[in-house]
Amino acid sequence: MSAVKLLAEIADVGKDSGRGGYSRHVFDAAELELRQWFIEQAGLRGLAVRTDRNGNIWAWWGRPARGAVVTGSHLDSVPGGGAFDGPLGVASALAAVDILHARGFSPTKPFALVVFAEEEGGRFGVPCLGSRLLTGALDPDRARGLHDTAGITLAEAAAKAGRDPANFGADPESLALIGCFIELHVEQGRGLIDMDSPVATGSSIIAHGRYRFSFSGQGNHAGTTLIADRNDPMLPAAAVIAAARHAAAATSDARATVGRLVPVPGGTNVIASTVELWLDARVPGNGRTATLVEDIAEVARTAAAEEGCEVTVTQESYSDDVVFDEVLRNRMDQVLGGVPALPTGAGHDAGILAAHVPTGMLYVRNPTGISHAPAEYAEPIDVDFGAVSLAHVLEELAG
Amino acid sequence: MSAVKLLAEIADVGKDSGRGGYSRHVFDAAELELRQWFIEQAGLRGLAVRTDRNGNIWAWWGRPARGAVVTGSHLDSVPGGGAFDGPLGVASALAAVDILHARGFSPTKPFALVVFAEEEGGRFGVPCLGSRLLTGALDPDRARGLHDTAGITLAEAAAKAGRDPANFGADPESLALIGCFIELHVEQGRGLIDMDSPVATGSSIIAHGRYRFSFSGQGNHAGTTLIADRNDPMLPAAAVIAAARHAAAATSDARATVGRLVPVPGGTNVIASTVELWLDARVPGNGRTATLVEDIAEVARTAAAEEGCEVTVTQESYSDDVVFDEVLRNRMDQVLGGVPALPTGAGHDAGILAAHVPTGMLYVRNPTGISHAPAEYAEPIDVDFGAVSLAHVLEELAG
Repeated sequence: MSAVKLLAEIADVGKDSGRGGYSRHVFDAAELELRQWFIEQAGLRGLAVRTDRNGNIWAWWGRPARGAVVTGSHLDSVPGGGAFDGPLGVASALAAVDILHARGFSPTKPFALVVFAEEEGGRFGVPCLGSRLLTGALDPDRARGLHDTAGITLAEAAAKAGRDPANFGADPESLALIGCFIELHVEQGRGLIDMDSPVATGSSIIAHGRYRFSFSGQGNHAGTTLIADRNDPMLPAAAVIAAARHAAAATSDARATVGRLVPVPGGTNVIASTVELWLDARVPGNGRTATLVEDIAEVARTAAAEEGCEVTVTQESYSDDVVFDEVLRNRMDQVLGGVPALPTGAGHDAGILAAHVPTGMLYVRNPTGISHAPAEYAEPIDVDFGAVSLAHVLEELAG
Repeated sequence: MSAVKLLAEIADVGKDSGRGGYSRHVFDAAELELRQWFIEQAGLRGLAVRTDRNGNIWAWWGRPARGAVVTGSHLDSVPGGGAFDGPLGVASALAAVDILHARGFSPTKPFALVVFAEEEGGRFGVPCLGSRLLTGALDPDRARGLHDTAGITLAEAAAKAGRDPANFGADPESLALIGCFIELHVEQGRGLIDMDSPVATGSSIIAHGRYRFSFSGQGNHAGTTLIADRNDPMLPAAAVIAAARHAAAATSDARATVGRLVPVPGGTNVIASTVELWLDARVPGNGRTATLVEDIAEVARTAAAEEGCEVTVTQESYSDDVVFDEVLRNRMDQVLGGVPALPTGAGHDAGILAAHVPTGMLYVRNPTGISHAPAEYAEPIDVDFGAVSLAHVLEELAG
């Protein structure tokens, strides 16, 4: 079945009528439905399915063994995200198996598809949750205690979905099976539009992290509290939004974003008692992200003190620069007859795995250049070209 | 029963474990429980209960007739509010009836208690919803279409609670019954602490309004979208928070607050596509609030244009300055043996009714000076003193 048809099968799952686009988060109803769909699709192709201790799903063509060629991506989305970020890589992996089947190809190397859990961190805050747990990059105790906006912990959500959170943690057995990993992904920018190419390989991922700024002040009445008597945490929060923009604009190749901000209690006629906001910061070059965040944190501390508020800054996740395996990228490039190589500011499970095994990425052109939003797109002809390209690469690697 | 004991009866209703304090909003489970409680309490006192076409509850001591002495307040709260704002006035009204009963008092004038619906506007955005509908200050079509954060309209919520929203609208028959209205309320500031008095009369309410700023930009990926390519509505939203503070600080006696702000979709790694924020603005002197808001809106428009975003500003409610009836206030003052008179920055149903009937307010000391927050408080001895004071006033007015 083509990747376009596979994506059409899940086009109704997890639609978010409030935000637009899709909201599919780990262990919610939509994500569980997508997991079931993947398991069924793998079964239809004769693949043997196993969910690992961290909730990542593996589908093996033949017997699991070391040195496997592995491809896949994720099925979860950001809140109100697009249809392609994640599912395109999964659908293309399934479609590539069909293409290889049709060609009569039989892998001589072990071969598997994988779906990683909660790549976006949309529910529990830490991106690449499944691959970080697998590789030991995330402490399982910390993971179990992560909670969503309703206060439900990852441990509780996992248990409710039939997974045992006591099993979370580094999984050297699964990791040791991976000989190399290829992730196909929709492009999250305009590189391939400008280069007029349907696909590219990935060259690198810039360093990136997430930081929670927690401000506390004094909740009070918006009408009776004189301006001079206020300790309003919205003021330093606003200063952080402005400072993040200012600092990023002044730093070459930097990005800094505040896309999530929650005043509590959140009443129109109420001065907030607390505000939590999340800073997404990314600067190429190890150590430069920390410097940028420290500059912004300094503004937060000064603005909080001026308002009689307090602030704490917590790093929720951080990943250094990643350069994808050059030998693997050259092989992909040769198979594909020469395609562009793109750096990206987006994190991926491939970036986490790259510290452990040879890893490559394949990007598919996005005609809007927009991602993490309903406007994210890939033309059907490019989607199918991407799956064919992936099949070529897998044939080369597993043949 | 004392007002302290009456408040204790509802101390568990509508507790908000997330925000702290209470969340009791019109037609939600907690508010419906409080309505039922009030109806039962009125019944225990032999009062005849009727809910009017706009969801306000009336309890009559004797036959309803024109020229009635009416007292009451509201049972709803802001999100995460205190235990006293609203319920203190209702509990004190019930306690005053007990005091008058115990004294063998029988009113020679018609006499009623009232509970107004959704005074805080905590669910549907418009404060003094019940009294505005009653007096014709709010168009019933607009009211029916107001919606909460879950998208439920007031019409739907009312129908679910057994009220017919088709009946919403000006209620000249109910209004004509009110000869005068007295609202007892916890003080929402430090006036009575400084004056060392347990109670005060209300002299005035400053003009106030609510304004929704709706920003729209382009949702996109926080990692891949270059700073120069962004249309991030969080930037002009932050500018409004800063501008509101700046404008209010520069305007004598002004207050301006942003306590509610919602970025959509609200993902950490997502540039927001839209941001809605609500500005609560209050400046004594008719017309001055509009001037303040226009200054802030100008900043919003400029900041939005700089970011390639759009903004619309909508007035959700506005009330001019109110000066409470001086003859009535003097009578209250004489009965109470001389008490301070306080202006306030807080809106009340009494402020809406003041345009139609002689209206007075009685404030009870709040030792924290904090309101619309869990720290809002009144000492038991002051609560009971307030109810006794209210009984004195009612005896004078209805005797």
